[in-house]
Amino acid sequence: MSKLAINGGSKAVTIAAEEQWTPPCDEIRNVIDEKINAGKLSGDWEDTYFKFEDEFAAYTGAKNCLAFNEGTFSLWAAYLGIGLKPGDEVIVPSYTWIASISPALYIGARPVFCEVEKGKLVADPADIRKRITPKTKAIVVVHIHGNVANMDEIMEIARENNLYVVEDCSHCHGAEWNGKKAGTIGHIGCFSMQGDFITGKALPAGEGGMIITNDDDLYNKIVFYTQINRPLKAGEQLDEKYKRFYPANLGVKFRAHPFALCIARVMLKYLDYRNDQKRSYRQKMNEALSGIPGIITISEYEKARAGGFYGGMQMLYDATAYDNLPKERFLEAIKAEGVDMSYRDYDALHMTPLFQEGYDIYGNGQGAICGDYIGYKNGDLPVTESTWANLMGMPVFTNEPAGYAEQVIEAFRKVSENYKELL
Amino acid sequence: MSKLAINGGSKAVTIAAEEQWTPPCDEIRNVIDEKINAGKLSGDWEDTYFKFEDEFAAYTGAKNCLAFNEGTFSLWAAYLGIGLKPGDEVIVPSYTWIASISPALYIGARPVFCEVEKGKLVADPADIRKRITPKTKAIVVVHIHGNVANMDEIMEIARENNLYVVEDCSHCHGAEWNGKKAGTIGHIGCFSMQGDFITGKALPAGEGGMIITNDDDLYNKIVFYTQINRPLKAGEQLDEKYKRFYPANLGVKFRAHPFALCIARVMLKYLDYRNDQKRSYRQKMNEALSGIPGIITISEYEKARAGGFYGGMQMLYDATAYDNLPKERFLEAIKAEGVDMSYRDYDALHMTPLFQEGYDIYGNGQGAICGDYIGYKNGDLPVTESTWANLMGMPVFTNEPAGYAEQVIEAFRKVSENYKELL
Repeated sequence: MSKLAINGGSKAVTIAAEEQWTPPCDEIRNVIDEKINAGKLSGDWEDTYFKFEDEFAAYTGAKNCLAFNEGTFSLWAAYLGIGLKPGDEVIVPSYTWIASISPALYIGARPVFCEVEKGKLVADPADIRKRITPKTKAIVVVHIHGNVANMDEIMEIARENNLYVVEDCSHCHGAEWNGKKAGTIGHIGCFSMQGDFITGKALPAGEGGMIITNDDDLYNKIVFYTQINRPLKAGEQLDEKYKRFYPANLGVKFRAHPFALCIARVMLKYLDYRNDQKRSYRQKMNEALSGIPGIITISEYEKARAGGFYGGMQMLYDATAYDNLPKERFLEAIKAEGVDMSYRDYDALHMTPLFQEGYDIYGNGQGAICGDYIGYKNGDLPVTESTWANLMGMPVFTNEPAGYAEQVIEAFRKVSENYKELL
Repeated sequence: MSKLAINGGSKAVTIAAEEQWTPPCDEIRNVIDEKINAGKLSGDWEDTYFKFEDEFAAYTGAKNCLAFNEGTFSLWAAYLGIGLKPGDEVIVPSYTWIASISPALYIGARPVFCEVEKGKLVADPADIRKRITPKTKAIVVVHIHGNVANMDEIMEIARENNLYVVEDCSHCHGAEWNGKKAGTIGHIGCFSMQGDFITGKALPAGEGGMIITNDDDLYNKIVFYTQINRPLKAGEQLDEKYKRFYPANLGVKFRAHPFALCIARVMLKYLDYRNDQKRSYRQKMNEALSGIPGIITISEYEKARAGGFYGGMQMLYDATAYDNLPKERFLEAIKAEGVDMSYRDYDALHMTPLFQEGYDIYGNGQGAICGDYIGYKNGDLPVTESTWANLMGMPVFTNEPAGYAEQVIEAFRKVSENYKELL
């Protein structure tokens, strides 16, 4: 008689995978309702923009924070700030969300994909080194799903080669490296605030983003390149270089919606609590899952303290533990047991049509990924490819339903012990 | 004894220039509160994004509408859509908000400024003709402060020279040319929704924008260039060219905040009423002011029906009617009478440091306004310069305070009759 649910047995998980934490809707509503009543929309500098920026700067310990309309534009702004220009190269892990690098394409700079570290999901410093050329301008580090990359090694590489380090922190609000908040170790940290209160970024705002940087010159340049008609904060001085172009600057506006920042200001109060809870949940699950054959949990550097956890928690599948049972089959069986194995699944970018075939964005044969661009092909990044092929993920919870975690672990144990039913 | 308030006389205007129309805050609050309670932020495609787009398309009679995070990005999207590339030229009136053209700078395309029509504030077709070169790709028409440009002539020029016409409709939501809504006559119409309920754009959303176009190819290309992970609307087909890149497309997101569109959907219901009221107010004021010596009201084409009225209503000052009394002095006297003469004052772009000196945006000597760029100088656009020098403006009202308009007219009459006190 079959034991596995996929074969007609009873399910190991009978509890729905529903977040039990209640978002602070009342608080958010009150703040926004007040703004609506007062007709305070764009232009609410002191009470919305500057307050959010000051609070997030204080939270991260960064000197400067600047809010944007999207995470995408926080990266775009960073690329403009570091002086990325057509023909430059940017090293970026292939396993990331495309927006880590897509703004560079519009500037005309070329992505150079690097490997992730085996079992860690973050950029591999040794592989980054191999990909540096005279055209390299920057390394983009992505603390993917909240896992913090080896910032010591990466900063060392950057120093040696005179490169900028852009930290894409869209997944890791509140994460740390060696006691410092992610985003403050590289030259600039970029964040997304996309998404809703539960499944969105750790600091969600609907749509939104921000950069943090300790480099005043970089900050001033980014203001000049992206912020038309932005008033000066108390004590802020205009840089001589940009003074006579003020306030129109370069005429564009990468600006957050004020209500996005209203949401974010409330949500920031709950960030540490949610991170702590999710970290505990992840640790508990990792400890249990690491005892299951064929499940490789994601390992962290000692100096790293994961945070944000966008996209849930990941693990790798090792088919050799199960007579080469394909991951897809294993996963189906786990899901059939009632485990929520949904997660934010990214393509390995070098395996996508865009970066394999290239595209002539401006139609002049001279763009980032056309002309002399040699597209990637499958096999080019073997570690990333095997990681990607074996990746599985599941949600993490601020407050999980009572008993859910134990049932999930039981489901893994059950499928593991009865895998022969799947062969 | 002095009669003018500036010289110690009593003020002609004793009523505060306060809009009496009450914005629909309750309605807006209800919609947004519901979204907050349901945790519907980004991703609320059917109920927010598509509904707004369908409603605005229906309002304008356009085939396609696509919402953006800013008016700036609606223009950026338009430029990407028409295939603007580095080295191209774009003809644009010098008297406009810089964002009409600034996104083109980031693409590497060069603005070529044209004159406005005397007494009309909109692009002069005869002058546009003179500025066409083999590099010209597009004409940007700005229906500034709600005044509609001569679309018949401009479309004819575009046809003859195989150029795109981009209508910057940021000031003129609801305006018409020959019975068609502004934005539907050129190849693409771009709108801003920046600002608050009273002083913002005619369709305000805090921050936001949209494009409309009847050209499906243009629409599909813009979706591909600016909309990552946008689901298809019912009945929408993916273009063959872009199919295999879907849904990541080119990896960037120029996306409106969902709450911006919640606001805009409510405000759209009031657009026609507000436009009708403001149109009547403007007409009443224009009729009275045109009887004042030295005041030249802005004239409209017979086919034009102004709308939106962002930045209020303008007029030109003719110093010769007052023994060459400088405009500034006349204006001071009018203000001293209690008239609100605040208005959205734009620089003539060719007179700004940015377009006179140029700027090397990407630091490679090859940008839009560097390298072989010959900057503009004062005197280059004499009609625009004299228009700009003589421009004055004042608010228009949906519901003006009772008696305010009459007092304003009286103030003009009083200063006009007693101008010798100012000499």
